[in-house]
Amino acid sequence: MELGKNYIGYTYTSSGSKTFRTFNPKLNSENTFEFTEATPEEINTAVNLAWDAFKSYRKISGKSKAKFLNLIADELSLAEKDIIEMYCQESGLPEGRAKGELGRTIFQLRTFAQLVEDDHWVEANINSNAHHSNKPDLRQYNIPLGPVAVFGASNFPLAYSTAGGDTASALASGCPVIVKSHPMHAATGSLVASAIVKAAKKTNMPNGVFSNLNSSDTEVGRMLVLHPKVKAVGFTGSIKGGRALFDYAASRPEPIPVFAEMGSINPVVFLKDSLTEKNNHWAETYAGSITLGTGQFCTNPGLIIGLKSNEFSAFSIDLANKIETIQAQCMLHPKLHTHYEHLKNETLAQTKVQLLNSTTIDSKLTSVSGTVALVDAATFIANPLLQREVFGPFSLLVQCEDYAQMEQLIDCLEGQLTGTIIGTEAELLSQIQLLEALQQKVGRLIFNGVPTGVEVCPSMTHGGPYPASTDSRFTAVGTNAIKRWVRPFSFQGFPDALIPKILKRESFTTTKRNTHEY
Amino acid sequence: MELGKNYIGYTYTSSGSKTFRTFNPKLNSENTFEFTEATPEEINTAVNLAWDAFKSYRKISGKSKAKFLNLIADELSLAEKDIIEMYCQESGLPEGRAKGELGRTIFQLRTFAQLVEDDHWVEANINSNAHHSNKPDLRQYNIPLGPVAVFGASNFPLAYSTAGGDTASALASGCPVIVKSHPMHAATGSLVASAIVKAAKKTNMPNGVFSNLNSSDTEVGRMLVLHPKVKAVGFTGSIKGGRALFDYAASRPEPIPVFAEMGSINPVVFLKDSLTEKNNHWAETYAGSITLGTGQFCTNPGLIIGLKSNEFSAFSIDLANKIETIQAQCMLHPKLHTHYEHLKNETLAQTKVQLLNSTTIDSKLTSVSGTVALVDAATFIANPLLQREVFGPFSLLVQCEDYAQMEQLIDCLEGQLTGTIIGTEAELLSQIQLLEALQQKVGRLIFNGVPTGVEVCPSMTHGGPYPASTDSRFTAVGTNAIKRWVRPFSFQGFPDALIPKILKRESFTTTKRNTHEY
Repeated sequence: MELGKNYIGYTYTSSGSKTFRTFNPKLNSENTFEFTEATPEEINTAVNLAWDAFKSYRKISGKSKAKFLNLIADELSLAEKDIIEMYCQESGLPEGRAKGELGRTIFQLRTFAQLVEDDHWVEANINSNAHHSNKPDLRQYNIPLGPVAVFGASNFPLAYSTAGGDTASALASGCPVIVKSHPMHAATGSLVASAIVKAAKKTNMPNGVFSNLNSSDTEVGRMLVLHPKVKAVGFTGSIKGGRALFDYAASRPEPIPVFAEMGSINPVVFLKDSLTEKNNHWAETYAGSITLGTGQFCTNPGLIIGLKSNEFSAFSIDLANKIETIQAQCMLHPKLHTHYEHLKNETLAQTKVQLLNSTTIDSKLTSVSGTVALVDAATFIANPLLQREVFGPFSLLVQCEDYAQMEQLIDCLEGQLTGTIIGTEAELLSQIQLLEALQQKVGRLIFNGVPTGVEVCPSMTHGGPYPASTDSRFTAVGTNAIKRWVRPFSFQGFPDALIPKILKRESFTTTKRNTHEY
Repeated sequence: MELGKNYIGYTYTSSGSKTFRTFNPKLNSENTFEFTEATPEEINTAVNLAWDAFKSYRKISGKSKAKFLNLIADELSLAEKDIIEMYCQESGLPEGRAKGELGRTIFQLRTFAQLVEDDHWVEANINSNAHHSNKPDLRQYNIPLGPVAVFGASNFPLAYSTAGGDTASALASGCPVIVKSHPMHAATGSLVASAIVKAAKKTNMPNGVFSNLNSSDTEVGRMLVLHPKVKAVGFTGSIKGGRALFDYAASRPEPIPVFAEMGSINPVVFLKDSLTEKNNHWAETYAGSITLGTGQFCTNPGLIIGLKSNEFSAFSIDLANKIETIQAQCMLHPKLHTHYEHLKNETLAQTKVQLLNSTTIDSKLTSVSGTVALVDAATFIANPLLQREVFGPFSLLVQCEDYAQMEQLIDCLEGQLTGTIIGTEAELLSQIQLLEALQQKVGRLIFNGVPTGVEVCPSMTHGGPYPASTDSRFTAVGTNAIKRWVRPFSFQGFPDALIPKILKRESFTTTKRNTHEY
């Protein structure tokens, strides 16, 4: 098992001198293997290779792309033991989570393979009226944008990283991918990259269809996004990181699209009737959701909104008690731990914010237990700092005087990945304005559930108004994620011999699926 | 006929003191009526009204929106006489063009009315597997973004302005619209705005669903794009103008999407065999296309690429001769005329650029005749200034040594709305790399035709890689233009009673059109 170098296309190399190591949060020590930061020359070579690869990769058949994606999935399965072991060493997350995430990653790859296998995803569209009039014959379909730079997430070393949803959807669309490997799990990333490179070679993909660059700071990312031959960016991470990439991309002579999935506090609204009988159920459920994966989920419920009442008070106490019974778990990295403690303490130090549970200080540097605090709605509305995401197992409970104030609070929220409403159908029908207000703020609305857990299916929206994402018109999860990397293109007046099969007249008569003839 | 004030929602008002006039290019004099620039307070009021209107407008039925759009079309028809007269006074364009453009504008409005009438355009999508497993029930559809700021084009006072494609598609999607009226045809815009306001009132649309702001400089636009309650921008015009709005939007605390359709020189590639017999045909056709509307089309063919040969030389001379026979026509405005002369002369002054026809200096300040010039490919490739759009009836012919150099030239082009290839099927098949290279640069590729003329139909792509547009993933023309103003949204675990009709289970069993059940 070789580790530490970059994949510049098919070449495993490192000519740089700057090195870094990953960290084992469970052992509270650095891992032994060393990674060499990609040099400016290596970045440039990777992008130029991707550009050259694009010339053929954009044209290969859906069947060939499907074979490539399925073989990546196969190679990941073959390397499962090594990947899972490394994942746990670099993240501190339990083996069950690692296996689940690998399964999800493989499922995503196979889903995109299935999607592109028959080329119908290109939304081929023809104006056949052209044959009955003097109108031009126009045939439209979606074509890939070009090389995509992918920035993996700290909190999903597999499903949102090297071979995650961004990479799978970009490769499926016909775009080569250059991954800026996440420095917190560079070895896991390297093992995954090795699986992708193996699959690419075995299926005769062009050299440069995939590269993997090691990087411990922001310079490699900046250079990638500013490279003229990079045509789109996918990112999962913090608002600060995503916004920086967005700003680089917008500042280019030729601006390029950035889909950054960023911060969210995922508000949960408890209606009055919801807290009469099931308190215990919801307190337990939310104690679990808040602390799941040490709270390190984009969809972690960081804000719980209820009406000032005995029931909400009882729920708050229940929730705090339940959270106290959950053992402290390590965070992904000491940096995230420090960050969490800093933001949590800053939030707790705000006027009128009341800590609800005792927090245990774990002797291990990276371990934290869950924390919940309470504040009134007027204070929350007046203090924007209380809306800030505290990345980790933290949730702020907000108590409203009435539904009018609750609506006012929702109206002042920033964009979110998700919103959740807990209540009865009858009560929500009578307070439908809350649903409508929340819908304006989020990409996905959940009824009587938890926001954690993002189903991979075409009807999923994982995105939302800024800062949940940099472009709410797209989703990072589900087959529609491919739309981020393609553009519509029209052929006017071309004979069948000169255009792709999916646009030939025979394609419109043999099938109707996803084609639109009018 | 009242002119000069702003429509701030339903209120026809002007509290400002700065005024401006439009210009009659045919008479070479200012028009008499005066317009009052919108004030910062009026801008703010218009946006706040749009925001409030959005709360109800986003929810109204497709049928109601269709009625509104169709009534705008009716009101435009009723006002046809006044609109056409004013259009000609403010643009100098002939009546036939004015009538054609009004017809197109009305057609676009009715097309979007038809699109949204039955709500199927929202791409409703459900994972019905949820009923057979423990997977969540997820139902996805598209919802509108919020108030859209629309910036009309100088060169299409109707079809790409006040009630043009941006406005029609935004209103169809459920987004209120605030138009920044184009200062070169403010009276035409005001008449159209009046028709929209009448239709909005008659169909009981919320006050604020539409506003029309007068403005002769860039400040109103800047304030509009930076207003926190504006959620998207549509623009048609120059690269300078579109990029400025894009930069404002990207600099906001909450960045918003900008679809700016901007500059293009629309390269036309002549294959060798195309110039053996039909020289005369193509010379005449392109003389017409280059000078159509005094060359003031986004799709004007500003670049003609051929192989160095006796045939291409003969074609060049034919084209120059044909253009000389076409009478000088006035441009839309003295400012555009000055700009045209400046850019044309700067281009002609470049090394090795050879003027092909004598240009007549018309006594009227705003009139120009067509101009073509010739340069060799090596010079063109080496001098980026030669790629600059000269907005007006100008085209640069570029002579290549061979197909390899032609491909090299295409590779160095910026993004374009269109590309055109003139040739036989057999020859293009043998030079397919030219088609492939050109496809990477454009939104629409035309075979044996002219780029001028943009068919309004779903398979049209009017957009393209930067700087043709600021986001090649969308089109400004055709029903897909609505996608610029909507975002996917998912309901998870909601009972039928709480979600829109199109997402209820009954909708998925009664119809399959544009719904996707899996």
